[in-house]
Amino acid sequence: MAGRTVRKTRSRARPARTARRVHSPARLLQLGLGFWGPRALLSAVELGVFSALAKGPLDQKQLRARLGLHVRAAHDFLDALVALRVLRRRAGRYHNTSDADAFLDRAKPGYVGGILEMAARRLYPFWGSLTEALRTGAPQNEARAGGDPFAALYADPERLRGFLAAMTGASMGAARAIASKFPWRNYQTFVDVGAAQGCVPVQLALAHRHLRGTGFDLAPVEPIYSEFVRSFGLEARLGFQAGDFFRDPMPQADVLIMGHILHDWNLEQKHLLLQKAYAALPKRGTLIVYDAMIDDARSSNAAGLLMSLNMLIETPGGFDYTPSDCRGWMKATGFRSIRLVPLTAMESMLVATK
Amino acid sequence: MAGRTVRKTRSRARPARTARRVHSPARLLQLGLGFWGPRALLSAVELGVFSALAKGPLDQKQLRARLGLHVRAAHDFLDALVALRVLRRRAGRYHNTSDADAFLDRAKPGYVGGILEMAARRLYPFWGSLTEALRTGAPQNEARAGGDPFAALYADPERLRGFLAAMTGASMGAARAIASKFPWRNYQTFVDVGAAQGCVPVQLALAHRHLRGTGFDLAPVEPIYSEFVRSFGLEARLGFQAGDFFRDPMPQADVLIMGHILHDWNLEQKHLLLQKAYAALPKRGTLIVYDAMIDDARSSNAAGLLMSLNMLIETPGGFDYTPSDCRGWMKATGFRSIRLVPLTAMESMLVATK
Repeated sequence: MAGRTVRKTRSRARPARTARRVHSPARLLQLGLGFWGPRALLSAVELGVFSALAKGPLDQKQLRARLGLHVRAAHDFLDALVALRVLRRRAGRYHNTSDADAFLDRAKPGYVGGILEMAARRLYPFWGSLTEALRTGAPQNEARAGGDPFAALYADPERLRGFLAAMTGASMGAARAIASKFPWRNYQTFVDVGAAQGCVPVQLALAHRHLRGTGFDLAPVEPIYSEFVRSFGLEARLGFQAGDFFRDPMPQADVLIMGHILHDWNLEQKHLLLQKAYAALPKRGTLIVYDAMIDDARSSNAAGLLMSLNMLIETPGGFDYTPSDCRGWMKATGFRSIRLVPLTAMESMLVATK
Repeated sequence: MAGRTVRKTRSRARPARTARRVHSPARLLQLGLGFWGPRALLSAVELGVFSALAKGPLDQKQLRARLGLHVRAAHDFLDALVALRVLRRRAGRYHNTSDADAFLDRAKPGYVGGILEMAARRLYPFWGSLTEALRTGAPQNEARAGGDPFAALYADPERLRGFLAAMTGASMGAARAIASKFPWRNYQTFVDVGAAQGCVPVQLALAHRHLRGTGFDLAPVEPIYSEFVRSFGLEARLGFQAGDFFRDPMPQADVLIMGHILHDWNLEQKHLLLQKAYAALPKRGTLIVYDAMIDDARSSNAAGLLMSLNMLIETPGGFDYTPSDCRGWMKATGFRSIRLVPLTAMESMLVATK
């Protein structure tokens, strides 16, 4: 019976293309085992492969010594990074690819590896409990036992530093795009709500010399934010205001920015944050909201939908949303002239006027 | 200083394409967080999404009830599976895509989900210790404490059944390709060395009515193999011989097949297995070796290199290899007329004559 079914699906009556597609499980197996390549990159970032190669190419033996790799593992690992196109190999020596060199060398200001270090240490194992999260609707991270997902993070300076650096990694692409895709010449001041290390303020201030900005975040963030801003020599134009965006009013400015903030919270909290942003803005002030938004049809931007599952794993009530969802919330708050601007392959911003 | 470096790499002197590539960390972040999609598919297989939809489409509410999904998680999870192109959604109801239906419905004989169930349960968490494996060269699975990696597996009937079903999932694509890409009409008998559940014997016997085959594997495999073969009504043409391929001679046949076997073992053991295959074959007999072989340049087939890292995690000495590597070992053993035949997107076979 089972055998007959197999032969039936092999029938010559089907069009060749359908038959070929249906007859190979390759795509499904590649997708299901597709965590191997990402995990290899996460380990490479953890081990500092790209920082080691930033000063020049090294051969396998030199890399083994530098990174503490075992002889059994080094050859396949390094060549896998070549096949994944994050390294190149020429005459037995390994080089960074240009993007790996620009963004994964810890010594460069464009370093985005913080988010990958966090993924290596936290997200990868937490996603191992995805099935549990899908059954229970409950977070699978440090806040698994309940409580504020950020409390544990903010209470420990070392973990907080890692988390804030991770947020810089997650925001760098969007920050650069916001710097170039918004008419900043018409505005003088901005506030980044939930500024973390200050990735967005720094990119805006680097690109637009007339802008003055404020990072708004919880008090423990201040020293880490200030150190980051000073490393770019921008302390004269970028300040910090300590506060809790649920308890305190938001600082006032021409433009308020909320990136990777709304998706952390439930619907009621999302509405509250939009209302507080509206209250803080002057008339004709602008709100920029950016996130890895889900496409309106909820059928093509896998990254946005998976980011929403990441919020399932990381928070008690957070979720990502479509531009239409957010546009509706913004309209209900009183915003007008709302427009969508794509930022990166994964992310978009909604620009709204009070 | 740091800021200046950023501005320097932004120089207009660079060609636009290079500049754009270097200026976006998107590809690196997508690769590093690329485990989310695979993990979502693994959870879908674990939860039985595709088996539930095999009899017809269901809406979100029906699927929640059927699979025990939490209301907070279901919408994003199911739509993520749509965006990953393993489900389709029409008028609010979810359908399997054609390949998911053919290969991920537990009730169908083409089911390959065993390997994904094993990945969900074992490989995903073990790969979480990749960095440790790269530093120590030691396995990160049940055999982490040392010893034979297969001993624990073969001692527990339930785990053995899961592992053997996983091997069917891993071999289905190659098995069907071997059935069509080798001149079986010139041969009467074959032995599948390390036959597991019997995926390859079954596919060969289904496609070629004149063939008689033997599955050769450890004694605990026999009942599972026999049950699988009987489910296809092939017990008259497919037998089983119990044995240990390191201790016992291999059974004799016109064609010996070793798939996903050589990569489990170290170089000395690989040579020994090839010698034992040579000894078991008649003059002009044929050996087929297939695996996810690494490309000879070791720079493009990421799947083969990552499979070799999987052997690092799963075995004390196993590794994958290039066709040139294996050709050299085969020649040293005495084989001749060795030819390479691609089987699937990931795998190839070497066909060698005694």
